[in-house]
Amino acid sequence: MNDPRVVALGGGHGLHASLSALRRVTNRLTAVVTVADDGGSSGRLRRELGVIPPGDLRMALAALCRDDQWGQTWAEVVQHRFRTEGDLHEHAVGNLLIVALWELLGDAVEGLDWVGRLLGAQGRVLPMSTVPLDIVADVQGADPLYPLEVTQVKGQVACAMTPGKVLGVSLVPQDAPASPEALSAIRDADYVVFGPGSWFTSVLPHLMIPELQRALIETKATRVVALNLAPQPGETDDFSQQAHLDVLQAHAPDLRIDVVLADSGVVEDADALDKAVHSMGGRLELAAIAATDGSPRHDPALLAQAFVQIFASGL
Amino acid sequence: MNDPRVVALGGGHGLHASLSALRRVTNRLTAVVTVADDGGSSGRLRRELGVIPPGDLRMALAALCRDDQWGQTWAEVVQHRFRTEGDLHEHAVGNLLIVALWELLGDAVEGLDWVGRLLGAQGRVLPMSTVPLDIVADVQGADPLYPLEVTQVKGQVACAMTPGKVLGVSLVPQDAPASPEALSAIRDADYVVFGPGSWFTSVLPHLMIPELQRALIETKATRVVALNLAPQPGETDDFSQQAHLDVLQAHAPDLRIDVVLADSGVVEDADALDKAVHSMGGRLELAAIAATDGSPRHDPALLAQAFVQIFASGL
Repeated sequence: MNDPRVVALGGGHGLHASLSALRRVTNRLTAVVTVADDGGSSGRLRRELGVIPPGDLRMALAALCRDDQWGQTWAEVVQHRFRTEGDLHEHAVGNLLIVALWELLGDAVEGLDWVGRLLGAQGRVLPMSTVPLDIVADVQGADPLYPLEVTQVKGQVACAMTPGKVLGVSLVPQDAPASPEALSAIRDADYVVFGPGSWFTSVLPHLMIPELQRALIETKATRVVALNLAPQPGETDDFSQQAHLDVLQAHAPDLRIDVVLADSGVVEDADALDKAVHSMGGRLELAAIAATDGSPRHDPALLAQAFVQIFASGL
Repeated sequence: MNDPRVVALGGGHGLHASLSALRRVTNRLTAVVTVADDGGSSGRLRRELGVIPPGDLRMALAALCRDDQWGQTWAEVVQHRFRTEGDLHEHAVGNLLIVALWELLGDAVEGLDWVGRLLGAQGRVLPMSTVPLDIVADVQGADPLYPLEVTQVKGQVACAMTPGKVLGVSLVPQDAPASPEALSAIRDADYVVFGPGSWFTSVLPHLMIPELQRALIETKATRVVALNLAPQPGETDDFSQQAHLDVLQAHAPDLRIDVVLADSGVVEDADALDKAVHSMGGRLELAAIAATDGSPRHDPALLAQAFVQIFASGL
């Protein structure tokens, strides 16, 4: 049987985890990456050069690097951050490389493909949109003096750091164009994987791009949601696993979820979660996927095994 | 017959020209590059990170890039400069890549070898010293109000820009260590090529490093001096071609020169130059090596042909 065509949606460390697992399972892997970051090196490059923020794209590419000295060395270079007292402080080398390729080639996807070739990337990395985006969150109690008031918080950094409770997110601009290559990848996929990752700022944004939401609803692919191991401090402090699914559904009511993957050691009430998933029309897969050192990270090999299981039963 | 082992000494655009020619002639090519630049992107990186200035090394690597789409594209990336209103303005991408590799690998030569592999470089690029250097020039009339006064001007940029007449150069520190790999390359070479290039700031500095001067004097290699096509504005405004040789000899009296290569169309008094070269113990090679568009640049193909001629008669 051919490798399944898998599209992984997300950003940041969560996407790095899913890609590190999925690259072991299939050679036909595409990452579709959020481009709403406004902090750190990415934020500065976006403001200085007017480009889409490269950081999440860089991290996804590094996760796909070939497993030999060549791939590993260039992945380290790409991930390397300068620590200085001057202008370069905090810039990741791969961010600079990516934006240079964009300036030279004039095409975001072509530039990312070149970095992919440099790393010997096992898969392709695409931006979810061709323009830089901003996340806007409806937040309750953003100002601790008014704990019940709902206000809008703008920017990924501000949304991730707010002391209030995030109720929902949207994007500016609201009708941002999706990357055409991302749309094709989703339409042609056998599996689409949401998460793990920062729920409001890395997983949900994909659903806020109208064209992308439509493609995710219409694709014949099996939709898999990989839940987080631990709540995200700030963003989803007191969110149950079920609440994550509810938020997903609230942002895209027409999106069918086929499989929900959760760590068997983390789930508090498996029956309740199973019921919730069923009521959404999907099935729950429980597996030991957490790192065995007790940290709230996924173990790439275990997560890969869980995906093998899902793909074996689903195709 | 095996390819000759050739070491090209210099920096900047002059070295780029000799390397662009020599890579067509031999597969055993090593560039030994000045590390005294204190201007532009290189100067800022040297001050911000305490590294040797990467710019001349980068340009040499780009000159050696493989002649296919891969090599050409990465050479363009490496040579690309950001033009912004912000912190990155003027930084060359290759400079950032090189210093990142230095930070990661902790070894200047290893880092350059990795960039060489990226470009598919046809040859090796080495720094002349393992520490950043400063050029100090004795300049007559640096202050136009005192045209006869001799003062010291410090830094490559200041030396290249001085309105006065450069009488000689030295390096700070005076006893800088040579790169061990550069010493081996010179000792094992069949040919060592000086120039073309900015005479005081790119060609002579190699002779100011004691270990390097000794290796250049002791090597059994044939020493070739490739003269410039036009005087360098500022640095060598009213220098005859013979004056270039005199200055070289004044800075390294024990250095034997075996072959002097000059453009037949540029030499004003071939007989006088021939006599001068003979009196130094060498022979003069005249050839049409200038670009045919009239610009004061060497034509890589013609320069390569001239080197073939020299290597054929000399081995």
